[in-house]
Amino acid sequence: METLSENTAFGGVQGVYRHRSEACDCDMTFGLFLPQEAQDGPVPVLWYLSGLTCTHENAMTKAGAQGWAAEQGIALVFPDTSPRGEGVADDPAYDLGQGAGFYVNATQAPWAPHFRMWDYVAEELPRLIDANFAIDPERQAITGHSMGGHGALTLAMALPGRFRSVSAFAPIAHPAGSDWGRKQLTAYLGADETAWAGHDASLMMRETGFDGPVLIDQGGSDQFLDLLKPETLAEALAARRQEATFRMQKGYDHSYFFVSSFMEDHVTFHASALWA
Amino acid sequence: METLSENTAFGGVQGVYRHRSEACDCDMTFGLFLPQEAQDGPVPVLWYLSGLTCTHENAMTKAGAQGWAAEQGIALVFPDTSPRGEGVADDPAYDLGQGAGFYVNATQAPWAPHFRMWDYVAEELPRLIDANFAIDPERQAITGHSMGGHGALTLAMALPGRFRSVSAFAPIAHPAGSDWGRKQLTAYLGADETAWAGHDASLMMRETGFDGPVLIDQGGSDQFLDLLKPETLAEALAARRQEATFRMQKGYDHSYFFVSSFMEDHVTFHASALWA
Repeated sequence: METLSENTAFGGVQGVYRHRSEACDCDMTFGLFLPQEAQDGPVPVLWYLSGLTCTHENAMTKAGAQGWAAEQGIALVFPDTSPRGEGVADDPAYDLGQGAGFYVNATQAPWAPHFRMWDYVAEELPRLIDANFAIDPERQAITGHSMGGHGALTLAMALPGRFRSVSAFAPIAHPAGSDWGRKQLTAYLGADETAWAGHDASLMMRETGFDGPVLIDQGGSDQFLDLLKPETLAEALAARRQEATFRMQKGYDHSYFFVSSFMEDHVTFHASALWA
Repeated sequence: METLSENTAFGGVQGVYRHRSEACDCDMTFGLFLPQEAQDGPVPVLWYLSGLTCTHENAMTKAGAQGWAAEQGIALVFPDTSPRGEGVADDPAYDLGQGAGFYVNATQAPWAPHFRMWDYVAEELPRLIDANFAIDPERQAITGHSMGGHGALTLAMALPGRFRSVSAFAPIAHPAGSDWGRKQLTAYLGADETAWAGHDASLMMRETGFDGPVLIDQGGSDQFLDLLKPETLAEALAARRQEATFRMQKGYDHSYFFVSSFMEDHVTFHASALWA
């Protein structure tokens, strides 16, 4: 593992690291914020999964999360959104291929060999971080924005016991019923929709739910509301009697101005679960 | 004036606007954050001047200032750092020409016709904002980073009564004695150093000082310490008996991770003066 940069931030350290990923069979880069408390021992960790077109860097520089994480004494992980590099398949569209891994293990050509973001985020990167940094693997939580909100919700429900809490900013809430989803799930997993069931937050919420608290924020003026399908998730949350808060935030759009506006609430929400 | 974007943020609006600048004889773009309170009447305003290579956008997306400004009910202005466009002179170096206006009115070719950032920030943009937005011109404060810290300090001292408080993050504190300054002041103002006197924060602090409180934060691990010359400004502040706080922040570098780490302190500092 190679250190690309380390900057002191809010009394802690914002690092960027590169490593050879077995899951994705390419070099992968991630950001990790460690609060000051990590100098004295393992700290809880909040995963932040990013959206379409993002790298590890967007949320790390624009979401305003480090200050709140420092206040709560928790670490933040910012993974990339897909495998990358010359040997990795890509597509001219912004919403397929590099920058658009959708947090699944692709089974279809040409994506299958590298696009294994599920294994990367669920297995490989947690092991790597646990082995190299002062992180407490028993205290993990997860959040994300847009495609990353989809990733956070589906991972949290598929891995019971792993995450104490889950939240999302404007998640792609029902990819199996949206043009943000059907195209990508078909490309990565094939046209047989039974293979998609573990990758749709609304369907999973109806079937299994999450064994902890859930927080969803959605901008009421989000330009992608028709693609995100928050109503499907809201219905599923209520039908499941899931412990959850779903907030439609009047006037907010899909940007990081929206994400940063509610970041304090999300970090505080997770800290309550992580320090309980 | 043209609205390029408006995003709801922290209960207010982060806007980006473009207008024809007479001072710079080109189109100029700026960011303006208005807190919710601006819907009910004029609010105080904090100017944020950016550093080398930045546009209006860097601090607007990475400094984490809007949340604190919203909490204090004050507006934020994010001007660009130079004139721009095809007809505007430039230089291959990152620290001269476009992105490096140094907040002076150039008198030398080829810079003279467009590079009038002093007049733009001191006169034209304040008038434009006052005429178009709910800003209280009697309650203004100013801050900035690096080259923008230089701009903030020199403007504040040159315009007594304009700003109630001034602060800076890692300012270029003594450009007349630094390679970040001598090159640019020579290019824009000519080799006669008497023309530089109004554009060096340390020299101005020794001569006149500022009629209000001053806050300076400097990273102790800043990679540009030799160019910034904080020791010259610290000496001048003390020699002048200036009401000031100068902080050397151990471990911090020159990045926006440093700026955002102390943004709460700066906004709170200015709010005290603005609401007094």
